Amino acid sequence: MDKYSKVSITVIRRLPKYYRYLGELIDKGINRISSQELSKMTGFTASQIRQDLNNFGGFGQQGYGYNVEELHGELGKILGLDTIYKAVIAGAGNLGQAIANYKGFEDAGFKVLSLFDKNPKLIGLKIREIEIKDVDYMVEFIKENNVDIGIITTPKAYAQDIADIFVKAEVKGIWNFAPTDLNVPDNIIVENVRLNESLFALSYFLKQKHIH
Amino acid sequence: MDKYSKVSITVIRRLPKYYRYLGELIDKGINRISSQELSKMTGFTASQIRQDLNNFGGFGQQGYGYNVEELHGELGKILGLDTIYKAVIAGAGNLGQAIANYKGFEDAGFKVLSLFDKNPKLIGLKIREIEIKDVDYMVEFIKENNVDIGIITTPKAYAQDIADIFVKAEVKGIWNFAPTDLNVPDNIIVENVRLNESLFALSYFLKQKHIH
Repeated sequence: MDKYSKVSITVIRRLPKYYRYLGELIDKGINRISSQELSKMTGFTASQIRQDLNNFGGFGQQGYGYNVEELHGELGKILGLDTIYKAVIAGAGNLGQAIANYKGFEDAGFKVLSLFDKNPKLIGLKIREIEIKDVDYMVEFIKENNVDIGIITTPKAYAQDIADIFVKAEVKGIWNFAPTDLNVPDNIIVENVRLNESLFALSYFLKQKHIH
Repeated sequence: MDKYSKVSITVIRRLPKYYRYLGELIDKGINRISSQELSKMTGFTASQIRQDLNNFGGFGQQGYGYNVEELHGELGKILGLDTIYKAVIAGAGNLGQAIANYKGFEDAGFKVLSLFDKNPKLIGLKIREIEIKDVDYMVEFIKENNVDIGIITTPKAYAQDIADIFVKAEVKGIWNFAPTDLNVPDNIIVENVRLNESLFALSYFLKQKHIH
């Protein structure tokens, strides 16, 4: 059994948010916080916050609140941020390059080893210290370097082919930016970033505002 | 009253997903679909799908199902995809350039008029046909061109300053990629893309898999 396998996805999806807010409190030099104050920051109710954190052993103390640094550290461990994961990026266009340059990666314990593309104009270039290689060598590279996750920043039309290559090369997880669902075996973790859905939501709210 | 002001945010968040799946069905030449089949595609229950779509007048017919093209068109209108919104991007680094190049924009009815940056090396360059301009002229540009939305792809440290400029220039909405919460008046719509939270979720699932 997983240590937290009984914890619902909804709770887990809130953890990164707690983690982010606690990081901001640390930046501000704040050492302790009550669930009420966390409620004001996050928009979640105080009782929901207490319930969420109880899933992971509950780090608060009655009348004292939470020790910010301790809770931040514990959540970081739960989120796996103390573990280094090796990643490669398939698709070395602007989005792939932006991801390779993304500072948040290091904070999350991810290390991008290489970008891959099929465009000869891009192959051989370097983004920071990270070389763009020919996608034909991707399986070999992933296996040799025990890469944990594959990131897909190709156009939608190539996304499933790339996912198939990642599965063949035995990555553990895929971070998918292509606006399509990937067919992969159940044991591969897929995390989707749906830019188009976010944009459609924005468009919806703008239209409602206009009607209003 | 807004036309759909009684519809919950949770339902609205699901609409872009329906819209995307219906688009894929159109690509495959499929003309009609039952809520049961939509359920298999989307992972939502058939009764939830019927309930969701009922909020918007219900486009299905008993025993026939939904007319794919009609439903796609109606959802597109509800999502405001038939309206053109003008956008500018603050932050012309890799992410800003990736967003400026993003094909999904046109499908969602957004038109990027300009990128803005403070880096003299970037000012004057063009991404596709879109010029990178000096951020000092952003307020003026937004007002003159009646820009609807501002997109923030700067580092976190500048995000609030940029948001303040957007508010001053009277944009209607902000699409925020910086990993921080923006303080803006209630009448400004903010849609956040939380890449770090997505990455943390991936990290969590990888760690659980490892423990497993």
